[in-house]
Amino acid sequence: MAGIYKYTVEQANVEGRGRAKISFINGIIMQTADTDAYRTGFGVSTMQQDNYSWVLSRYAVQIDRIPTIGEVISVDTWIGKCEKFFSVRNFILRDESGATIGTAISLWALINLTTRRPMLIEDMHEGVSLDREEPMSRPAKIGAVRADLTAEHRVAYSDIDFNGHLNSMRSIDHLIDMLPVSEVVESKGYRLDINFSREGFAEQVLTLTCQRDQTNLFDISVDGTSLTKASITLF
Amino acid sequence: MAGIYKYTVEQANVEGRGRAKISFINGIIMQTADTDAYRTGFGVSTMQQDNYSWVLSRYAVQIDRIPTIGEVISVDTWIGKCEKFFSVRNFILRDESGATIGTAISLWALINLTTRRPMLIEDMHEGVSLDREEPMSRPAKIGAVRADLTAEHRVAYSDIDFNGHLNSMRSIDHLIDMLPVSEVVESKGYRLDINFSREGFAEQVLTLTCQRDQTNLFDISVDGTSLTKASITLF
Repeated sequence: MAGIYKYTVEQANVEGRGRAKISFINGIIMQTADTDAYRTGFGVSTMQQDNYSWVLSRYAVQIDRIPTIGEVISVDTWIGKCEKFFSVRNFILRDESGATIGTAISLWALINLTTRRPMLIEDMHEGVSLDREEPMSRPAKIGAVRADLTAEHRVAYSDIDFNGHLNSMRSIDHLIDMLPVSEVVESKGYRLDINFSREGFAEQVLTLTCQRDQTNLFDISVDGTSLTKASITLF
Repeated sequence: MAGIYKYTVEQANVEGRGRAKISFINGIIMQTADTDAYRTGFGVSTMQQDNYSWVLSRYAVQIDRIPTIGEVISVDTWIGKCEKFFSVRNFILRDESGATIGTAISLWALINLTTRRPMLIEDMHEGVSLDREEPMSRPAKIGAVRADLTAEHRVAYSDIDFNGHLNSMRSIDHLIDMLPVSEVVESKGYRLDINFSREGFAEQVLTLTCQRDQTNLFDISVDGTSLTKASITLF
């Protein structure tokens, strides 16, 4: 089963050149994952009744043409073959002409809410998963990050998600915000690769580290323990 | 003419208690203003063709019951009598039972994009404005702010709006973020009053000041010049 969901780029979703912001693109991808999981019986609220929740573990997105205000974007999503501990959800973003403008891939762990440990989920998507090729390479594994730039950020009200934890998409925003605004706004497209390893909580002070390069590398840590690593390539 | 617009509170829009975030409420109010202005022929894109743009000057919102995930909120909006330099747009938010959960009021200046000066707009809403009572008191005028708390924030990519300037709703988020997360999440409702006096720009370093009280007062300034003043009461 695959699902297709449509979103319009509104004025509130664009930057000064009228192009969709990265947070909007990540937002519609996550909204699609959420809506499609409900549709197929694997939604977060269904899982929480059984004391489980989906946690985003790895995520990559590449946008080759950034859509502009007024455009309607279709997000096509499907679940691929399960890994031992991960469900793989794929995405293709298309414009109104049907042209592909971007792709994304996400790996989700199913966490027992009491033990906070991942469940074995090898066979749970039987009949749901599609034997369809993944649309892009898997999220890259990010290693050590040289501290060319550092910043601190206290986890505040804006950063909190429906679990009361640090919102994973907001943490990506904080990394992009370390880059000069002009560099982001002038790029034609981008690829993000994110590894989420630990949750963040309200009032924690995050240390943000950036290694500036063609591919910028990032780390988010609390008291020396890494929560998130990422790479961002603007092209 | 009045317009009514509906929005669903999705998982991405709530905090840990499943209640709509303040940014979501502000977002649907601004989306409603934008959509309704287009419908009545006063939209930003129409105005920009004539070298004018709407700029939010003062804004107040009061929410008495915070809606929860899955709820559908109706935003009823209408333009009231014009002031010399301001168009007044009113809002009532209702839940599915028809009960009022909140109100908002906004004053907009029409700026000439070349001179950046406000236009006289006394008579432009003839036939559009409604002789209907304003739903709440006008946005309070905020005076001097004692510096009980201060913070700095560089205007980054996430902060930029469709004009390429500091997004007014994002600047409200930065003020709320100065408060302890628990205080915001535990409140039953809130009232915000905002005075926008100058625009902010990418890469500027904002000084955020907060006077902590029953009604918290806030100031956003750049190099000693105030851009925005606000008050936030959580109840």
